[in-house]
Amino acid sequence: MAIITLTTDFGEKDHFVGAIKGAIFSELEEINIVDISHSISPFNISEAAYIIQNAYSSFPKGTIHLIGIDSELSPENKHIAVKLDDHYFICANNGIMSMICTEIVPEKLVEINIHDRVETNFPVLDIFVKVACHIARGGTLEVIGKVINTIKPIKNLIPFINDEQNQIIGSVIYIDNYGNVVTNIKRKFFEQIQKGRAYQVFARNHKFEKIYNRFSDIIDFEIEESKRNVDGKGLVVFNSSGYIEIAVYKSNCTTVGGASTLMGLKNMDTVTINFLNA
Amino acid sequence: MAIITLTTDFGEKDHFVGAIKGAIFSELEEINIVDISHSISPFNISEAAYIIQNAYSSFPKGTIHLIGIDSELSPENKHIAVKLDDHYFICANNGIMSMICTEIVPEKLVEINIHDRVETNFPVLDIFVKVACHIARGGTLEVIGKVINTIKPIKNLIPFINDEQNQIIGSVIYIDNYGNVVTNIKRKFFEQIQKGRAYQVFARNHKFEKIYNRFSDIIDFEIEESKRNVDGKGLVVFNSSGYIEIAVYKSNCTTVGGASTLMGLKNMDTVTINFLNA
Amino acid sequence: MAIITLTTDFGEKDHFVGAIKGAIFSELEEINIVDISHSISPFNISEAAYIIQNAYSSFPKGTIHLIGIDSELSPENKHIAVKLDDHYFICANNGIMSMICTEIVPEKLVEINIHDRVETNFPVLDIFVKVACHIARGGTLEVIGKVINTIKPIKNLIPFINDEQNQIIGSVIYIDNYGNVVTNIKRKFFEQIQKGRAYQVFARNHKFEKIYNRFSDIIDFEIEESKRNVDGKGLVVFNSSGYIEIAVYKSNCTTVGGASTLMGLKNMDTVTINFLNA
Repeated sequence: MAIITLTTDFGEKDHFVGAIKGAIFSELEEINIVDISHSISPFNISEAAYIIQNAYSSFPKGTIHLIGIDSELSPENKHIAVKLDDHYFICANNGIMSMICTEIVPEKLVEINIHDRVETNFPVLDIFVKVACHIARGGTLEVIGKVINTIKPIKNLIPFINDEQNQIIGSVIYIDNYGNVVTNIKRKFFEQIQKGRAYQVFARNHKFEKIYNRFSDIIDFEIEESKRNVDGKGLVVFNSSGYIEIAVYKSNCTTVGGASTLMGLKNMDTVTINFLNA
Repeated sequence: MAIITLTTDFGEKDHFVGAIKGAIFSELEEINIVDISHSISPFNISEAAYIIQNAYSSFPKGTIHLIGIDSELSPENKHIAVKLDDHYFICANNGIMSMICTEIVPEKLVEINIHDRVETNFPVLDIFVKVACHIARGGTLEVIGKVINTIKPIKNLIPFINDEQNQIIGSVIYIDNYGNVVTNIKRKFFEQIQKGRAYQVFARNHKFEKIYNRFSDIIDFEIEESKRNVDGKGLVVFNSSGYIEIAVYKSNCTTVGGASTLMGLKNMDTVTINFLNA
Repeated sequence: MAIITLTTDFGEKDHFVGAIKGAIFSELEEINIVDISHSISPFNISEAAYIIQNAYSSFPKGTIHLIGIDSELSPENKHIAVKLDDHYFICANNGIMSMICTEIVPEKLVEINIHDRVETNFPVLDIFVKVACHIARGGTLEVIGKVINTIKPIKNLIPFINDEQNQIIGSVIYIDNYGNVVTNIKRKFFEQIQKGRAYQVFARNHKFEKIYNRFSDIIDFEIEESKRNVDGKGLVVFNSSGYIEIAVYKSNCTTVGGASTLMGLKNMDTVTINFLNA
């Protein structure tokens, strides 16, 4: 059975998501619809790009990913369908795909051109669903769009590195459910520059000298549990998506707070790594 | 495969929704369960009515819509099952169905009477699920209820129009995920009264002289992007459900705010449209 | 078709839940994945225990329940799979299962030992999904773990009763979507101690002398609706899960408030019941 995933900024309350699922079931009786997220911050392209990048590849090849963020059609905001890594993506050409596309070249990229057949001010319902169901039925991208060559980029996606190769200047791209602060610095990129050197990670007035592989690596299990004093402690980890993340051990945004609130870090803030010469 | 949709005020955290899905799967192995919303404000009948009205018709004919809002059985709050527009609805007779029923006459309307067979203080789980599964298996409404003729109305659903036919007095019925403010004035109704005349829309101390078809219609694409200054600008649009909506361009309730917070508009507030004589 | 349920503290926004669903569909084409909750407070074991206990038994026998709360593997936080009441549970051995296990003895209990085959810092994705799919395919627990005999308990799960048998000292274990305050005192336990005696329920400075079977039992339907004055009134009820709950009639946490905010009750607070001698 084909799978269509949904990633939107429609929220959990409104009727939009329900209406979209209904429209899909009206076209296809046999289909698995899977929510990735509907709680993207409104119009936040880079959040959506981060989420779809880290969710899509767990799905089987052939999965169709419908992304409804800032998708009102305008002369400057066209709709695209992309085949990449044997997955399909349907979204506005507003930068969402640029995070994935910097790592993997699209196999096929079309600008959707079925709008003359449909009058709408809810394009995710009226256009994206049609395209998704067309693909789910085995249809090709050329039937619903014309081939194009470039997609719109996002700014500040790639961390900066200085000429001496001893400093990475990254930025915060995502705050997760625990208040942990995800940077745009990937582990692989970090290790290429590091070449085994010692380093310091700076975020505002906070300094860290170690990046852990997992949270519990900060615990000394020789010490009795009640004397460890690690809850609420700040640390830097490689997160499960391969990004460097500034975190707080057992954080809770609604009670003790998370890294974001406790350290005063927010989206687009700078995170710097200095390498010490050997 | 039959479809059962769920619309409740149970929220995203508690076990209620999971328990209901489990109970449905315990009765029916082959069923599609689709969430419409579980984030209706507690006991908010008109919110639920707005959401179900705008979601249901996207689903295939024959879909069963289970609505769990204010559904504790009492002498004044009976349970009903409704067949309307070839869809089925199961809910309390508390006004939820009156928004849909002002536009479409029910084909069949019964008061559920299987309660003597079931002792419960969780009727959505113990009564509504049983009725939904009965319908999904092809059962008729007469088997689970006795036919009745009227449903309970909601107040303030219909906008008021003055004798001179030059003023519509509507009210706010819904605030959406973007903070946009939905009125109870439908486009069709507006156009019948307008008859091509110029008009002014008033909401608190805000005045608008145009209702747009979509958000991006306020943009002048001839102007360079950085000089347009439209983010956060207020406007009035016909929303995708056909209602007049007071909105803010690219609003975000948690950062810049939405129409609701920026203009101080809340549920049941008055929105007035004055028509200028030709 | 097998069913896998998901209960986590991953929230509604991040990519984690989507990634897990994708991974399950990559292993099993035919599977029903059902969300129980992803809004457990971060690392809150007793909330998770309460939710899974009250949701699982509605599902068909054989259902597989994957619980992702505080599941990072460490010397003190092992992973387990449990067969109990003909359901399967996969989680960390951190107390989550102790609420269910005080009432029902597990049929089978293993400590998962497939970690040497998988390097991961996202064990719910990389370990729990593998175990769940193994069970869904009909595999046995012995293949993925070694049999153990005890699970980690939660503190304060059981209410205290004094020697004179005239006082129960319970505590708050859960605050629900309506702000209602659930105690750890079950109806059955209460009635065993009560033996028909009159009683007083104390929570902070609030006193109640009756526990209702349902909310609307506080209404006198002889009185005209507008004169009843029950909205926002505090009461004690046996909730639909069989626990004693301190509630507010038609509460709404974002407007008028709920029992939790209005009475100042929070998790772990004490609730006392005094029985009056006959």
